Amino acid sequence: MYGQIRFERNPHLKTKPGIQDDLGFGRIFTDHMLVLDYEEGQGWHDPRIIPYAPLSYDPAAMIFHYGQAVFEGLKAFRTESGEIQIFRPDQNAKRLNRSSERLNMPPIDETFIVNAIQELVRVDADWVPSKQGASLYIRPFVIATEAGLGVRPSSRYSFVVIMSPVGAYYEEGLQPVKILVESHYARAVHGGTGGAKAAGNYAASLKAQVLAKEHDCAQVLWLDAIDKKSLEEVGSMNVFFKIGGEVITPSLSGSILEGITRKSIIHLLSDWGIPVTERRISIDEIVQAYENGTLEEAFGTGTAAVVSPIGSLLWQDTPMVINNGEIGELVHKLYDTITGIQYGRIADKHGWMVTC
Amino acid sequence: MYGQIRFERNPHLKTKPGIQDDLGFGRIFTDHMLVLDYEEGQGWHDPRIIPYAPLSYDPAAMIFHYGQAVFEGLKAFRTESGEIQIFRPDQNAKRLNRSSERLNMPPIDETFIVNAIQELVRVDADWVPSKQGASLYIRPFVIATEAGLGVRPSSRYSFVVIMSPVGAYYEEGLQPVKILVESHYARAVHGGTGGAKAAGNYAASLKAQVLAKEHDCAQVLWLDAIDKKSLEEVGSMNVFFKIGGEVITPSLSGSILEGITRKSIIHLLSDWGIPVTERRISIDEIVQAYENGTLEEAFGTGTAAVVSPIGSLLWQDTPMVINNGEIGELVHKLYDTITGIQYGRIADKHGWMVTC
Ligand SMILES: Cc1ncc(COP(=O)(O)O)c(C=O)c1O
Ligand SMILES: Cc1ncc(COP(=O)(O)O)c(C=O)c1O
Repeated sequence: MYGQIRFERNPHLKTKPGIQDDLGFGRIFTDHMLVLDYEEGQGWHDPRIIPYAPLSYDPAAMIFHYGQAVFEGLKAFRTESGEIQIFRPDQNAKRLNRSSERLNMPPIDETFIVNAIQELVRVDADWVPSKQGASLYIRPFVIATEAGLGVRPSSRYSFVVIMSPVGAYYEEGLQPVKILVESHYARAVHGGTGGAKAAGNYAASLKAQVLAKEHDCAQVLWLDAIDKKSLEEVGSMNVFFKIGGEVITPSLSGSILEGITRKSIIHLLSDWGIPVTERRISIDEIVQAYENGTLEEAFGTGTAAVVSPIGSLLWQDTPMVINNGEIGELVHKLYDTITGIQYGRIADKHGWMVTC
Repeated sequence: MYGQIRFERNPHLKTKPGIQDDLGFGRIFTDHMLVLDYEEGQGWHDPRIIPYAPLSYDPAAMIFHYGQAVFEGLKAFRTESGEIQIFRPDQNAKRLNRSSERLNMPPIDETFIVNAIQELVRVDADWVPSKQGASLYIRPFVIATEAGLGVRPSSRYSFVVIMSPVGAYYEEGLQPVKILVESHYARAVHGGTGGAKAAGNYAASLKAQVLAKEHDCAQVLWLDAIDKKSLEEVGSMNVFFKIGGEVITPSLSGSILEGITRKSIIHLLSDWGIPVTERRISIDEIVQAYENGTLEEAFGTGTAAVVSPIGSLLWQDTPMVINNGEIGELVHKLYDTITGIQYGRIADKHGWMVTC
């Protein structure tokens, strides 16, 4: 598909971070990147792995003006035996195309995406950290590059993949976080782009995120934009609750992102005989469960953290402390299982891992 | 403010389009651009007018991922006596900062913005077309340039101004357009970014715009995302109606852009003793007015077209033809007045025009 991937080796390899270095998230990048171009009429063409270097576009390129851009995020892990494996890249490829569809951008062959990512990881294999909890974060993105100020779908795009070694999300083990329930700002709405991993969604979320920080909270729990009642998601994570023994998560209404971690967790729980109900969940219901003592666990799920236990929810200036602010049993088991599969310590029964 | 604007003349001037050339919209650009950089701690600095050339950023620059970008659009006109004047640049400067605020971006001194635009227009003054109806479109924009994948406000930005000579919007005089009333997709919602000229809003609108074209319509009339009843705006224009002698326009609910043309029209109409009511307008009300014969005129307003008469509205597969598909008296008078002021044929009583 799209022809052979051309390879231009970087003659100036960077110094790789040492095993003791604090990697942070998305701050340092590997030696190479993958690029594939699109032009109307010609389609996707010229796949290449080239030295990591600045991207240069006309100042009128649509990416600088109209936010026609989508992205993905996934990770490669180094197992104890030194092998490298990627978590469910096929799912990211599918979602990238679903996001593109919403922004009227051309799809990319999904097999190509997965193969290209594998090839790029192989080229920069030495960048996959072996430190416990660390991994190689992979960031595919598509941007509109036509130079022109008319508001219309671009006729040119670039698909780019960059990679960044990232540290353990929880340097000192799983940590419960405080979350602000947001009722003023909206991130997405039915009929909007909330179901897509569209660039503009993230810019739209920044104000509320800054507000959360001001309240000493790690993130925002979004309510739907319409009645400001239904729970949507937590920052860049989906959200789950365990109430009176039942596990629930907001259904895919079109305004939340269909997380791959969410999907994997639903799968695991069902394997364990714990059904997950996907439905509308209102904040009133959470308050009620909190008040009558049936709110057992709450957690966010996403590629960056895998799971993030919610220690307390700040709603209308009142904190609701969950499970005494401690890590729940279920969230712990999910974390151990998923990271176990990712690092090859637990058998990958579902064929989620793709080796490089 | 921010120090003297440094000037680096372009040694390779482009061939300017001739008076007969079809300029289109935003396809060709002048010889220079203005750039101003921001860095946390240092603030805005290093204003410069430099040769128009590609912008180059790290592939991890936030503009490529999170849509943290806002823009403006305004025009410079050449009067019959050869002078160059810009329409209400102070208003665009103000709105740029309001948009930035919503996306947690740092404001820019408004006097600086206006002066910098004037200076840039003076440098490329030969690019201001003298052809009837043509003008120089000015595009200021601010983009997040920090290289980093954490979702957070960028610590670096660039403010850039580029300029494009554009042809008359109506090559053959004012032309009524067909508009599709959209009830599926949403562009904005209360609490979202609809009131800002934020990049992501435009990407979010493309699907509906393509749908409009498929229905042989020029643009979409957006309904609010919540009850899908209240009118919002038309593509990149605000919307006005004349019903039974009364002029009405949707109020600034927070999810529509506060158009500078809209504001100017409200001002002019009030000068003429024609009050404009800014309020919620439902599509049902428009249908009713159409049915009982009181829907006299409908038009969009914006920098690109000034006014755009709506000849028919396509609602639930039924076209409502307005004013026999002809240009209304009011819209005609508004067009003549505003373009008259812009090209210096009519006295600028409100001090809207800023000379270069
Ligand atoms: C808005 C949003 N919701 C949810 C998620 C979780 O998705 P995933 O589990 O695929 O990482 C992400 C991050 O990717 C996100 O950006
Ligand atoms: C969404 C939107 N609404 C309305 C307008 C009209 O605003 P103005 O009259 O300032 O051009 C524009 C264009 O600038 C726009 O992009």
